[in-house]
Amino acid sequence: MGRRYETVSLLTDYGVADEFVGVVKSVIRDLAPHATLLDLTHGIRPYDVRAGSLALARAIPYVPEGIVVAVVDPGVGTARRAVAVEVADGAGVLVGPDNGLLAPAVAITGGATRAVELTNLEYQLEAPGATFAGRDVFAPAAAHLCNGVDLAELGPAVDPTLLMPGMVPLPRMESDGIHAEVLWVDRFGNCQLNIGPDELDEGIAGPRPDTVAVRIGDQQRAARLATAFAELPSGMLGLVLDSHGMLALALDQRSAAAELSLAQGDPVIVAGLDEQETGAALGGVTSPVELRRP
Amino acid sequence: MGRRYETVSLLTDYGVADEFVGVVKSVIRDLAPHATLLDLTHGIRPYDVRAGSLALARAIPYVPEGIVVAVVDPGVGTARRAVAVEVADGAGVLVGPDNGLLAPAVAITGGATRAVELTNLEYQLEAPGATFAGRDVFAPAAAHLCNGVDLAELGPAVDPTLLMPGMVPLPRMESDGIHAEVLWVDRFGNCQLNIGPDELDEGIAGPRPDTVAVRIGDQQRAARLATAFAELPSGMLGLVLDSHGMLALALDQRSAAAELSLAQGDPVIVAGLDEQETGAALGGVTSPVELRRP
Amino acid sequence: MGRRYETVSLLTDYGVADEFVGVVKSVIRDLAPHATLLDLTHGIRPYDVRAGSLALARAIPYVPEGIVVAVVDPGVGTARRAVAVEVADGAGVLVGPDNGLLAPAVAITGGATRAVELTNLEYQLEAPGATFAGRDVFAPAAAHLCNGVDLAELGPAVDPTLLMPGMVPLPRMESDGIHAEVLWVDRFGNCQLNIGPDELDEGIAGPRPDTVAVRIGDQQRAARLATAFAELPSGMLGLVLDSHGMLALALDQRSAAAELSLAQGDPVIVAGLDEQETGAALGGVTSPVELRRP
Repeated sequence: MGRRYETVSLLTDYGVADEFVGVVKSVIRDLAPHATLLDLTHGIRPYDVRAGSLALARAIPYVPEGIVVAVVDPGVGTARRAVAVEVADGAGVLVGPDNGLLAPAVAITGGATRAVELTNLEYQLEAPGATFAGRDVFAPAAAHLCNGVDLAELGPAVDPTLLMPGMVPLPRMESDGIHAEVLWVDRFGNCQLNIGPDELDEGIAGPRPDTVAVRIGDQQRAARLATAFAELPSGMLGLVLDSHGMLALALDQRSAAAELSLAQGDPVIVAGLDEQETGAALGGVTSPVELRRP
Repeated sequence: MGRRYETVSLLTDYGVADEFVGVVKSVIRDLAPHATLLDLTHGIRPYDVRAGSLALARAIPYVPEGIVVAVVDPGVGTARRAVAVEVADGAGVLVGPDNGLLAPAVAITGGATRAVELTNLEYQLEAPGATFAGRDVFAPAAAHLCNGVDLAELGPAVDPTLLMPGMVPLPRMESDGIHAEVLWVDRFGNCQLNIGPDELDEGIAGPRPDTVAVRIGDQQRAARLATAFAELPSGMLGLVLDSHGMLALALDQRSAAAELSLAQGDPVIVAGLDEQETGAALGGVTSPVELRRP
Repeated sequence: MGRRYETVSLLTDYGVADEFVGVVKSVIRDLAPHATLLDLTHGIRPYDVRAGSLALARAIPYVPEGIVVAVVDPGVGTARRAVAVEVADGAGVLVGPDNGLLAPAVAITGGATRAVELTNLEYQLEAPGATFAGRDVFAPAAAHLCNGVDLAELGPAVDPTLLMPGMVPLPRMESDGIHAEVLWVDRFGNCQLNIGPDELDEGIAGPRPDTVAVRIGDQQRAARLATAFAELPSGMLGLVLDSHGMLALALDQRSAAAELSLAQGDPVIVAGLDEQETGAALGGVTSPVELRRP
């Protein structure tokens, strides 16, 4: 027997309008009644593997020891593998599809120490039709791991270096500024970019300014650097060091996403005020930099 | 004292925007602190007893032993009875309104072994105004059952054969095909029909074809029979044996409901390609069968 | 060591689309694995402190002994204090921002017996950027309280009488009727007003009538007094003594909010039929009182 686990944390794109999540939990509760279930979120946009991987990466430093079941699985029923990935010498096991969803979280926890493909039918449920992987494969795997079944029992070992890598986009440093992307729009309309403080310093020459230029399509706006949403005067756009240590476009008590018509995946250029003007003059569409909303 | 229970599984149309579900759980937790609460779903459309009964029926084979509280209750405050229905010789008790909501799940678990009407005020909460049945009647009943109160204490016995039956519609076999109905549109836009493989074989003459005709209003489409969503070429409509063993209209990684403008309750005719053409020629509006999207 | 607690009940405006709630729960589970987590709701409209305070007030009579974490916190990062408020001589502790959110619930439980400001960094998490108060301050406070850390350890005492009061609006008795307000529109479209039975008797002269006049903007409608939604004939507007002992505008099995175009915060005048006619004649816009929908 292997180590037993007490907690199963769940992240899916199943939503809560249907009973999908309830059935996954039912299977785990039935097989491993001692385990506590913890919902990370089930609100990932359907099939959006990257958004799921980012949400899991943001959460994982806080997730308690135990099992994580993560399912955003557009390739269910194809040749994509179902896997369980052990991290931190067994302090945790991440269970889900091998499509990049787990990769950033695995990296953050220090990398995989073991991995297996979930092929042992003895530890799966039989489906009355198409496989519902969350219910039939991932939930039973999580429950059996909680019960002390060793990872190696669930299927053949997989070389962790051959797991599908994650899909986190890197910003590009160009002559007209940092070409970034909106990673995540949260409930409050804050738009997290794929830029941390180091990239900001790298991409903008000289000492860190108080205000930067932000270009979105042919809109151009000034954004104040801040370390708390509430530092922003009413209506002033901010580039805030958010609670994950990334930079986010934000307005105090209002939705920056609505104000700027920004959605996940949209490109954003961040530059020093001078550089941006130069860049724009060199070939871009220009518009006055607004320090305040009109 | 009767048997004690460890799990209370919940299914309602309360949504999660209000604190309704939280209050129901609070009452149970307060009265029976040892019980674990498990949400099946709270996203049933308000007052949609049939949708609730179908979701409960899909979930019930996986629900752990214990109590189920199910509340979709348009008749709250009227003469409709509040009941507790014991199944599987006491392995489970379903608690809710006697309006058909529980009936399919009770049938799937083998039928009621006992039932009572929840009229004993000693096991209810007093409301400051109108009765909130989930909070004042069903939650306390569930908690007291968990604590070992016998079903018979909660109120007078009800003849299980006199409980309100369920409302699952049956398909009709007609000369132009199987007249079916959309039972459920899930988060991914898959449209589950009230047809299983047996009805398909019964309704379509000859050996089971690879492709069938599907008529929705005056649209006509070809649908490929499949056992996994991912078997479908991009844009190809499928009639997939879903994870509950029912046939569902589906597209790979896209919403069939959006593509076909289908909603729960909509009629759908499924036929062999030849039959359907004949049927259409006999009187229907016809349109070319598209094997692929244009 | 102080008293230990077994339950942490949660109410926030975080929604469930992001992993915010999951991370808060992860922190509590990690620090206090014995505690059970109970979601009251996370569907409070972003930044709507009053709506959050009302939902918490409706729930609090049912919440089990233990810790409550409530977060609707537009002022996060400003000088607003983070507090923990002990009630009922330690039977419960409410943790959250000192912005009025907790006040009505504290009052309902009999008032604060102790309060502290959460400033002891030893019982907080360090944030990689801006403080995420739910994760970094409130969740650890709740967990440490569960573990028996005394309230006084979490920070300096605060005089409970100096906590921010709540913001529950009172109805006004005017010559043309009771000037009330929609406190809450629930999932079913019922519109709870800030009027209880006593205010109704006070504001409408003579014995309590069967039917009252309700004025919303320049619409005027008759509403039948009822003690259950199902008492209302189809399409008849009711003023129902709801399950919290407040009066709510309601229709049987339909949304009164949709029918009357009412939203939270909207003004509503309730009057005797005669008074209302007089009031209207004195200066208001008049329209026929409809006893039934046309």
